[in-house]
Amino acid sequence: MISFKILKKSKKSRARLGVLKTPHGEVQTPAFVPVATLGAVKALTFDSARRTGAQLLISNTFHLHLRPGEQIIKKMGGLHKFTSWDRPLMTDSGGFQVFSLGFGGEHGMGKILKEKSGLQIKKGDQPKTIKIRENGVEFRSPINGEKLFIGPKESIKIQESLGADIIYAFDECTSPVADYEYTKKSIETTHRWAKESLKHHKSKQAIYGVVQGGRFKDLRIESAKFIGALPFDGFGIGGEFGDDKKAMSQMLSWVVDNLPEEKPRHLLGIGYLEDMIPAIKSGVDTFDCIVPTRFARHGIAFTRTGRLDLSKTIFLKDKNPLDKKCKCEVCKTHTRSYISHLFRAKEINAMELLTFHNLYYFNEYVGEIRKLIKSGKI
Amino acid sequence: MISFKILKKSKKSRARLGVLKTPHGEVQTPAFVPVATLGAVKALTFDSARRTGAQLLISNTFHLHLRPGEQIIKKMGGLHKFTSWDRPLMTDSGGFQVFSLGFGGEHGMGKILKEKSGLQIKKGDQPKTIKIRENGVEFRSPINGEKLFIGPKESIKIQESLGADIIYAFDECTSPVADYEYTKKSIETTHRWAKESLKHHKSKQAIYGVVQGGRFKDLRIESAKFIGALPFDGFGIGGEFGDDKKAMSQMLSWVVDNLPEEKPRHLLGIGYLEDMIPAIKSGVDTFDCIVPTRFARHGIAFTRTGRLDLSKTIFLKDKNPLDKKCKCEVCKTHTRSYISHLFRAKEINAMELLTFHNLYYFNEYVGEIRKLIKSGKI
Repeated sequence: MISFKILKKSKKSRARLGVLKTPHGEVQTPAFVPVATLGAVKALTFDSARRTGAQLLISNTFHLHLRPGEQIIKKMGGLHKFTSWDRPLMTDSGGFQVFSLGFGGEHGMGKILKEKSGLQIKKGDQPKTIKIRENGVEFRSPINGEKLFIGPKESIKIQESLGADIIYAFDECTSPVADYEYTKKSIETTHRWAKESLKHHKSKQAIYGVVQGGRFKDLRIESAKFIGALPFDGFGIGGEFGDDKKAMSQMLSWVVDNLPEEKPRHLLGIGYLEDMIPAIKSGVDTFDCIVPTRFARHGIAFTRTGRLDLSKTIFLKDKNPLDKKCKCEVCKTHTRSYISHLFRAKEINAMELLTFHNLYYFNEYVGEIRKLIKSGKI
Repeated sequence: MISFKILKKSKKSRARLGVLKTPHGEVQTPAFVPVATLGAVKALTFDSARRTGAQLLISNTFHLHLRPGEQIIKKMGGLHKFTSWDRPLMTDSGGFQVFSLGFGGEHGMGKILKEKSGLQIKKGDQPKTIKIRENGVEFRSPINGEKLFIGPKESIKIQESLGADIIYAFDECTSPVADYEYTKKSIETTHRWAKESLKHHKSKQAIYGVVQGGRFKDLRIESAKFIGALPFDGFGIGGEFGDDKKAMSQMLSWVVDNLPEEKPRHLLGIGYLEDMIPAIKSGVDTFDCIVPTRFARHGIAFTRTGRLDLSKTIFLKDKNPLDKKCKCEVCKTHTRSYISHLFRAKEINAMELLTFHNLYYFNEYVGEIRKLIKSGKI
């Protein structure tokens, strides 16, 4: 069970300051939610993750179902005990994999978004690698090719075995190139699965419903109204959010204005720094993204002066910390020179140090936004 | 500058309890010395490395010369400042690479030692990939194929730029299959290079001479006497140490009995757990080895009940810590199940957690030996 209290509402936007109480502690919102796909923040120990200020993590149901399997985690006392993460935790539903292993995998997820490829998914189309059925989705395990079936019933069962504080209803995350008819049909499926998810939900975990609807105003509104009317504890907002911040803000406003105000809203898979203020101003309370962690593993540091690519030789002679104003232990201890050396020499702890800094920086950034809401500046 | 004080000598063996004082603090000896090849303990931050109880690290001159280059490190204020390691530090001379990139690389280092391959290196033989000259060794950079020349002069110059507390004279580390004549000729080279190293040594860093001589009693004794008579601050013992612990103990006794008693002795590149007591009983004060860190990255934990291979599925259901009696933060926090899951899922922090435990365990193990010497039990 969770409770959500709105401490302050912005007068200038939909932004709000809140506190989300869970059985594993409180989350000050708005909050960035680092991703712990397989029950670990990649390249960091949880001890380090805590020191970055991470309040709430999200793990992936689909991935944990494959490895090590929810039965093992259940036997070990659930995901908190298994991993030793003692703060709030959510699991996604596997709905994102309907996209990423389906049309997304086929069409190339990034490319579509950037290039407006001319591809179009029409009503009745099926991805090649998975099959979307009435009651769920037939997957192939990316690890061993084994057949898997996950629908609302299966997703909830797995998530109940995992035992996170917050779980999600199973949904179809649609592709940015799905056309109106496809998307209209898809939200019918997502809505049916939302009700099914609630039906199968027996545990005391909080459950969020997921709003879809792509880039189509009426479908987003329809989905928000439908999902918002169901007895969920909070709401996820999934799918695409357009090409720019303005489009994202608009799409979010369609959704947010049609969700119950008193319940928490989580934006699924969005979290570049430049997305944060628009998302928060649109009324989002929490949001997860792999950006700070994945970019770290590719040698990229986020700083107040922009992104730094530590693989570049220029940084080998740079005595500055990653970010001069950052108070994280990496910036207090190490130079760009040393971290660049480690990254170029393929030392594992380069990823660790960069992940630490990026997460700290993202968490600090949202912390500053919380202060701005509090002081009435946002 | 360093000083070495022997606190207690064993009555039953050559073992001694000591304290090695360096500009960056003291080392309680006997001590295990973790390897920080490129200025980082692989997979660990230095903050973590400190918490494993590591007292003294050894970095590799050859590797740091290639990446990032000693000039960059010098500009950054030396290796301590560059890396943020604030405890004692030594750099090897590059002499091991004369073996590992020479005959060792050609013949397969591990295989020779295990299989007694019938290979033999005779006087006048040269490895194919490097050339051993009068004044040093012609290498090819393993990174870009560039020609490199390192002799005693170059090695000392590089090590002075790096600025560790303790540096080593340049030597030829001979192969286990080098015959008597080759080894006899080789120690002449090593001895000449030892004198050259001293001649070029201008800094206030402590410098250790390296004893070689392979498996040959008279050559080991000759080398120990020669190197031991030079004004070094301590001594490294390099090369091979036979097939078993008994052979190692015997070879070490030939050397140790011919070195000045009051100076510290470092065994280069030896450090399986089972080697520690024989080495310490033979009068060794410090020893380095990649075993705990490299094995960790391959999923192996060292424990009181033997080595565990965490890649095995059996550990997925094992609720025990890596070692029941271990007091390290990994054993206090995590189960074998979780670490096995992380390792099998190729999560980077599996390597981090295993490296932490292994180093802590090795350091604890030597700490126990120190207690046994103190109480007169060794």
